[in-house]
Amino acid sequence: MKVTIIGLGLIGGSIAIKLKEANFATTITGVDKSKANQEKALKLNIVDTIAELEKGIKDANLIVLAIPVDAIKLLLPGVLDLVTDKQVVMEMGSTKQEILASVDQHPKRGRLVACHPMAGTEYSGPEAAIPNLYDGKNMVFCDVTKTDEDAFELAENVCEALEMKPIFMHAKEHDLHAAYVSHISHITSFGLALTVLEKEKSQGRIFELASGGFASTVRLAKSSPEMWVPIFEQNREHVLEVLREQLKQLQHFHDLLEKEDYPAVHKLIKQANKIKRIIK
Amino acid sequence: MKVTIIGLGLIGGSIAIKLKEANFATTITGVDKSKANQEKALKLNIVDTIAELEKGIKDANLIVLAIPVDAIKLLLPGVLDLVTDKQVVMEMGSTKQEILASVDQHPKRGRLVACHPMAGTEYSGPEAAIPNLYDGKNMVFCDVTKTDEDAFELAENVCEALEMKPIFMHAKEHDLHAAYVSHISHITSFGLALTVLEKEKSQGRIFELASGGFASTVRLAKSSPEMWVPIFEQNREHVLEVLREQLKQLQHFHDLLEKEDYPAVHKLIKQANKIKRIIK
Repeated sequence: MKVTIIGLGLIGGSIAIKLKEANFATTITGVDKSKANQEKALKLNIVDTIAELEKGIKDANLIVLAIPVDAIKLLLPGVLDLVTDKQVVMEMGSTKQEILASVDQHPKRGRLVACHPMAGTEYSGPEAAIPNLYDGKNMVFCDVTKTDEDAFELAENVCEALEMKPIFMHAKEHDLHAAYVSHISHITSFGLALTVLEKEKSQGRIFELASGGFASTVRLAKSSPEMWVPIFEQNREHVLEVLREQLKQLQHFHDLLEKEDYPAVHKLIKQANKIKRIIK
Repeated sequence: MKVTIIGLGLIGGSIAIKLKEANFATTITGVDKSKANQEKALKLNIVDTIAELEKGIKDANLIVLAIPVDAIKLLLPGVLDLVTDKQVVMEMGSTKQEILASVDQHPKRGRLVACHPMAGTEYSGPEAAIPNLYDGKNMVFCDVTKTDEDAFELAENVCEALEMKPIFMHAKEHDLHAAYVSHISHITSFGLALTVLEKEKSQGRIFELASGGFASTVRLAKSSPEMWVPIFEQNREHVLEVLREQLKQLQHFHDLLEKEDYPAVHKLIKQANKIKRIIK
């Protein structure tokens, strides 16, 4: 199986490493607009060869799109224009509705499998790619009824090679849920980082008190704007909905503390503790 | 050196294990109002013996208070009443101003060392205690000029035995900084957990999309109200200040997204990314 990966960052690079390791891919061709990423990916043995977009597509059985969601929306129609009825395209975007709407009527829509691997770190670039990023994680497949059966079967095999668990959703449901558990976590961390960095300007030494708890909560604030601004743009309505809910919850916490209603604060924390059911 | 630890949870239990391991303590006596904690601490070999509060204080060279901050405030004057000029008391509270104000005029104030070890996890109880919790972390000493020289020297030796780095602050400065890097992280996580748990009621499957990023940001929401409500109560003014700043930052993010000013969102994330300087 010849695989071409478009986008040699954390997501694409980690797919490349694992598909090679699992003997799923015989050859991996890399496509990336950044010369530096091309060189790093070759040097780190993430890909066997580098190609221009058109040639990379032409030579592959499977094409994986692992680039920011604005770039996916831009490139995907052209990629589908180029593929034959034997080739399969998997796009790995963190949003689905806008991307899928943009190719809904495309004659090659059946060759596309819309995926979202629920895995990542706050790092980016080929040097962030790791072999076991996906082990045991969920792979979301969206609107698979619009995908040809053979194309979906191939994608299922990729999922298995990555050691991921397949789950199925409508694009709309996916985007709402992603806003609630993934996108809001990032905004929460960005907000915390901004709050604390602002205070540091007048207070200097505040980071001497930073411990593991702070590090964990603020970790995602290291995530890149190149990836995240397009996600917030494409999923704007859901993100605004959850952000309003988050503001409401924090305002409520603030008001209870302001009026010194400690039994109510206690109850609120007890309620929040129920997250133990989800996060072990 | 005979050490008595009052409060056999994560903090006290981890101190006990390490001081024994480092041959700093010859005997460790445990004091805890919970019968279950007493039994667990004995069974896990965290303490050598269990005693009532008065007896535990009488027999020790060093007394460590590792209980919630409301309990410290309540017990500390009575503990100082009982100690001689040869004994030393270290209190490990996460807040300092109210606790120290409550014993400011106490005739034995010099025997007290006010400490805050900047380490912890979201778990509690003797079973959460681990030997290396403190390795390489900061130990904050507050208002040490009010502590007798020999008492502070002993506390420095404890700090060394725990392999911690000593740093020094005024109580007021400590409480402000703790609000900004520790207390707000917890409120942020509680808020996120409440937001998401609320949505789950109508949407069901949202946690299928939870990945490592969500788990990391929401981790602290597992923290217990018994520990945290008293911290928010004692540090209320600083916590309200930072919570208002956090609300302002999130509202600003919301407004930029609402009016679709993506270049400004990009700039905000770039600014938040500067946290990389602090959190490696």
